[in-house]
Order: sequence, then C-alpha cells, then structure tokens
Amino acid sequence: MGKGRLEAFSDGVIAVIITIMVLEMKVPRGADLAALMPLAPVFLSYVLSFIYVGIYWNNHHHMLHAVQHVSGRVLWANLHLLFWLSLVPFVTGWASEDLLAALPVALYGVVLFMAGVSYYLLARVLVAYHGKDSSLAHEIGKDYKGLTSLFIYALAIGLAFVYTWFSCALYILVAVMWFIPDRRIERTLPRTE
Amino acid sequence: MGKGRLEAFSDGVIAVIITIMVLEMKVPRGADLAALMPLAPVFLSYVLSFIYVGIYWNNHHHMLHAVQHVSGRVLWANLHLLFWLSLVPFVTGWASEDLLAALPVALYGVVLFMAGVSYYLLARVLVAYHGKDSSLAHEIGKDYKGLTSLFIYALAIGLAFVYTWFSCALYILVAVMWFIPDRRIERTLPRTE
Amino acid sequence: MGKGRLEAFSDGVIAVIITIMVLEMKVPRGADLAALMPLAPVFLSYVLSFIYVGIYWNNHHHMLHAVQHVSGRVLWANLHLLFWLSLVPFVTGWASEDLLAALPVALYGVVLFMAGVSYYLLARVLVAYHGKDSSLAHEIGKDYKGLTSLFIYALAIGLAFVYTWFSCALYILVAVMWFIPDRRIERTLPRTE
Amino acid sequence: MGKGRLEAFSDGVIAVIITIMVLEMKVPRGADLAALMPLAPVFLSYVLSFIYVGIYWNNHHHMLHAVQHVSGRVLWANLHLLFWLSLVPFVTGWASEDLLAALPVALYGVVLFMAGVSYYLLARVLVAYHGKDSSLAHEIGKDYKGLTSLFIYALAIGLAFVYTWFSCALYILVAVMWFIPDRRIERTLPRTE
Repeated sequence: MGKGRLEAFSDGVIAVIITIMVLEMKVPRGADLAALMPLAPVFLSYVLSFIYVGIYWNNHHHMLHAVQHVSGRVLWANLHLLFWLSLVPFVTGWASEDLLAALPVALYGVVLFMAGVSYYLLARVLVAYHGKDSSLAHEIGKDYKGLTSLFIYALAIGLAFVYTWFSCALYILVAVMWFIPDRRIERTLPRTE
Repeated sequence: MGKGRLEAFSDGVIAVIITIMVLEMKVPRGADLAALMPLAPVFLSYVLSFIYVGIYWNNHHHMLHAVQHVSGRVLWANLHLLFWLSLVPFVTGWASEDLLAALPVALYGVVLFMAGVSYYLLARVLVAYHGKDSSLAHEIGKDYKGLTSLFIYALAIGLAFVYTWFSCALYILVAVMWFIPDRRIERTLPRTE
Repeated sequence: MGKGRLEAFSDGVIAVIITIMVLEMKVPRGADLAALMPLAPVFLSYVLSFIYVGIYWNNHHHMLHAVQHVSGRVLWANLHLLFWLSLVPFVTGWASEDLLAALPVALYGVVLFMAGVSYYLLARVLVAYHGKDSSLAHEIGKDYKGLTSLFIYALAIGLAFVYTWFSCALYILVAVMWFIPDRRIERTLPRTE
Repeated sequence: MGKGRLEAFSDGVIAVIITIMVLEMKVPRGADLAALMPLAPVFLSYVLSFIYVGIYWNNHHHMLHAVQHVSGRVLWANLHLLFWLSLVPFVTGWASEDLLAALPVALYGVVLFMAGVSYYLLARVLVAYHGKDSSLAHEIGKDYKGLTSLFIYALAIGLAFVYTWFSCALYILVAVMWFIPDRRIERTLPRTE
C-alpha cells in the first residue's frame, strides 16, 4: 500500500510541475509573428524542461516498479527529490528570459544537479531497505549513467560563467543521453515495466 | 503496473491542463454586464478547448483499456501526446484574445494537428508492441476518424490566413464529429469500458 | 476499469479546482491588519465555494460507489459536471470582489444551478445504464434534495437583482442543507461507503 | 473503496498545494545575483512550508494505512484538514514578504495550529468509527507529539507580536521534531507502512 500512495502522490506532484511550467509562456499582446517570436526561448526552455521532468518520471516509474515496500525514510527521500523537481519551473522561467545569461543558466544546472543527487540518494535508501542482494539492488546497479550526468551538470555549472552556450549544449546532451531508450533495462524487464 | 501509473500520470496531467485553462478567464474589474461581455470569446474558446481535451481523455481511456502492458517507448509516445496537449491552454488563451486573428487561429490548429499526430503515433507504438493480431490492434483499426481529423486540421491551418472564421468552424466540426458517440465502439465494448 | 479512471480523473480535476481557488486570495501588499481586511470577503467566498466543491466530491463519491460500469455517455455526462465545477473559481473570484453586486452573485447561482443540473443528468444517465431496478437506481431514488437545491438556486438567481444579500443567504442555506450528514444514506451503506 | 478515493483525492489536493507554493517565487527581472537575492526569504519560507506539507502527507499516509473503512463524517473531517492546508501557500506568501513582520508570522502559526487541530479531529473521528479497541486506535494512541505541536504553535502565535524571530524558530523546531523519524512507529509497522 505504501508504495501505491507514494507513486500516486509523486505522479500528482510531477503532473502539476510539468503542466504549470507552461504558464510561464504568457499569452502575447499582439496577434502577429512579431508578438510571438519573443516566446521562442521560453518555448525551447519549456521543451527541454518537459523532457527532463519526463525523464525523471520514467526513471522513477522504472525504479519504483521493482520496489516491494517503503519506509518513512523512503517517503522523505522521495519528497526530497520532488522538492528539487518543483524548482524546475522557476529556474526554467528565469533561464528563458535570456538564454545567454550566466547565473540563470548555472542555477538551472544546480537544480538539475540536486535533482540528480536526490534521485541517487533515493536509490541508495531503497537499496539499503531491500538489501544488497535484492532484485532491486541488482537492477539499480552502479548507476553509471546517473553519476555521469552529475559530473556533466557540475561541469556545465562552472562553464556557465565562461561559455554559457556550452552549458546549454551540455544540458541538451544529458537529456539526449537519457532519452535514447536504455535497451539493456528494457530487455531485463520484458513486457512488465 | 506500468499501465496503471501511465494512466494515473496522464489523468493527472490532463486534469491540470483542463483546469488551468479556466485561469485565462480573468476576473473582470467591474460588476456589470459591460465588464463581463469582453470575456465572451474567452469563454467560447474555453468551451471548445475543454471539449477537445475531454475528447482526448475519452479516447485515451478507450485505447488504454485494451492495453495489456507498456514499454519505455510507450511511455515516451504518451509523454509526447501530453506535451502537445499541455500547449492547448496557451493557444486557447492567445486565440481567445481575438477570434478573427489569423496567426493565433492557425497556431491553435497546429497544436491540435500535432496532438492528433502524437495520438496516432501512440496508437502505432502500442500496436507494434502488442502485435498486429492483438485485440488492441483490431480495436484501433485504421483510425479513419483520426486521419480525417488530421486532414481537416491541416485545411483549417491554411484557411486561417484567408477565411479565419471558416477555420474556427472546422475546429468546431471536428469536435462535434468526435463528440457524437461512436456507437460501433460502444457495441464492441459493452459494459466493460 | 472504466470506473477507476473516471474516479481518478474526477478526483484530479476536483482537486485542482478546489486548490486553485485559493490563488484568488492575492498576498496583501502591507503586513498589517489594514492590508489583510480587504481579503475578508474573498476568504468568506472561498470558504463557501470550498464547501460546495467538497459537497460535490462527497456526493460524486457516494454515487460512483454504487456504479458497476460506465459507458461513453457516462464519461461525457461526468465531463459536463466537471465543466461547470471548473467555473466555480471564476465566479467565486468575481463575486468576492463585491459581495453585494447583483450580477456576480446571480452568475454564482447560475454556475451552481448548472452544476446541479449536470449532476442530476449524470445520475439519470447512470440509472438508465444500470436499469431501473438496479441497486444504484434504488439508492439515487428521486433525489428530492437535489431538485430542491435547483429550485433554491433559481430563486436566488432572480432575487440577486432585488435583495442580493438574500441570495447569498440562500447559497449558504443550500450548503448547510448538504453539509448536515444524511443519516438515512449512512445507514443504508454501513461501513462500506 | 471509500478509503481509496479519499486517499487519491487527498494526494491530489496536497500535490497541488505543495506545487503551487513555488509559483510565489516570481521570476526575477534581472539576470544577476542582485536580482536573485530578494528571493532568499521567499525560498526559505518555501522550504519550511514544503517540509510542513510533506509532514502532513506522511502522517496522513501512516494514519490512513491503518484505516479499514470511512464514513461521511470522515470525508468531511478530511476535507476540513485539506481546507487549512490549502491556506498554507497564502500565508507562506504573505510571511515571505517580510520574515520579521508580526501579523503574517502569527497568521502562519494560526494556519499551522488549525491544520494541527483538524488533523487531531480527523484522528478522533477515525478512532470513534473504528472503535477504541481497534488497531487504529492503538496506533494513534494519545498523540502527545501532535498536542505538543499545538501548544508550541499557540506559543509562537502570541510571541510573534513580541519576538517575531523566536516564533519563526519555534516553527522550525516543530518541523524538525516531526522530521526526525519516529523510530517507535517504524518498528510497529515493519516493512508495510
């Protein structure tokens, strides 16, 4: 039961996060292309953040699938992840004001980095609770992809103050890295994930 | 399980989309009819978009009912559909500012067209995953209604720049086309959908 | 299954409706009582509308509990109800600007009236689908309380243009009427509702 | 069934509450640190309120886990709790404008106090419905932690008008008190909470 409500609550929070981001796209005053164009960076940031939140939802879905039971510690580790994801609309909105501004682009990376850290912690708490020999521990494994992402985020945060566009490119790179279906997992969990 | 969370998450996102659209109806400054009247086009757009999102929820509901299991590819095809639906409040808000403005009316059609395309893709991904001889493949069939809708949207997008009101009429036509209960499906799925 | 998703989607929409209403209570500029007081009518309207939406959720919960299966027609009758409920935040916001203004108070009643009508229609559609001798039909019965509410709403709409405060009193009266637990139903559905 | 929908609806409402709070963090106008800094108190209030709403979700989760069935009275006691929680974004927004302003800090405490009272009432209604010898009654027990919190909130409300910062410290104290995992309960509900 615990797992059911944890999933339902996470689904609810992530559904609201992914949807209120679009409120940052304010209806333009005019009805022509000139009025619409300034929204281009806002739209692009929205697409990227939508994909990121989608990736987290997918990964959360996969990880929780293998979970048998949850503890109070798991609930808090999960809330910690949701906290950082809830900041995505804010940093998306700020970064979209000027895609070349160093600080907003760096802060976008900080939130992605912290979301990645909190996801990693959630995985550790779950593994500790299920035991190192559980199928969950086996499936989560070393999570090299997650650790690589953290490293790239850290790089992008630093680079934002030197080559801002390169940071943006790194964020897109990580998204693409996750977006490409992980054939290995798909094979491990055939037909049931 | 996968299916349960995919449905729950989609329900959450669609519930937020359909509800935040109403936020576009800003509370009027005055308390008389003169203050209320300017909201008439906003209200009409809201009604149309509410029906469209309702149609998508109903169709999603019907299609997923026949689904047995989901893959990572299905999750992304579903997120792709939710992405385009999440833009409905924005284009509704823009179009409602002036129901005769060509570009907003055309963009409204673009979002409906892309939502239709992404729904079509989701159906194909599901059929590919379940096999061409599955009951799901049989139920979805050729989806002539979906393809006809795509054609009408494309027509409406082009016409928006010539006869804007005709485009609006076409959007209403498609909504009516879907709103009229599909007796055939109802008969195929008696008492269980 | 159909029933499960209809309930989940309705829960989602009603949860968003009941929560975004509070956004109408804008944070005051000052930090003293003089800055807070103008929010008093907004708060009172919020309380009333929260209770109304809560009543609808409770009644929906009770009615759907006895439902065995749903049809496409039921899905639309349910969306129709959600449509009118989705307008509650708007009319609450408008009425709260001036609790004595005739038109907003009347429009508040119109939305309650239409929500009541759509709830009544949903009940009829469900009864028609389950048969007149079903336990659902027996439980819903004649729904005198619902019909009485409709009558009082109609009265309040008309009176808003003559004695506005009397209309407000009538809205409170209907809310109280539903809020008082219906002992009879509780007895009919012991421990399982 | 009743319990399932009560949980789903509560999850939905709490998910929206916890997420719309972040909308109070308005995107800064500039792209530098000077533009970001004024958001520091807003961010701190957001963190505290996020933790408080998270605590309520966790406690609600634990309490409902032991519930077997719900009555109309339980539904209303639950809505009463959700009502006070729905005011958290408003008081968070007001208090974050000036963390040293007496009235907003006191009102923040009033909402926490009322949320605590309504949670206590919900527990009583559930115990009355399940019987004093039920496992639910045993698990809820005397709820000394809840009563202590109420006492501290009352103290903080009064102190807000004398030493405002001390009130803030008390709110943090209560949050920490709940945040520290309750080992005793964890032991009582091994692997299943």
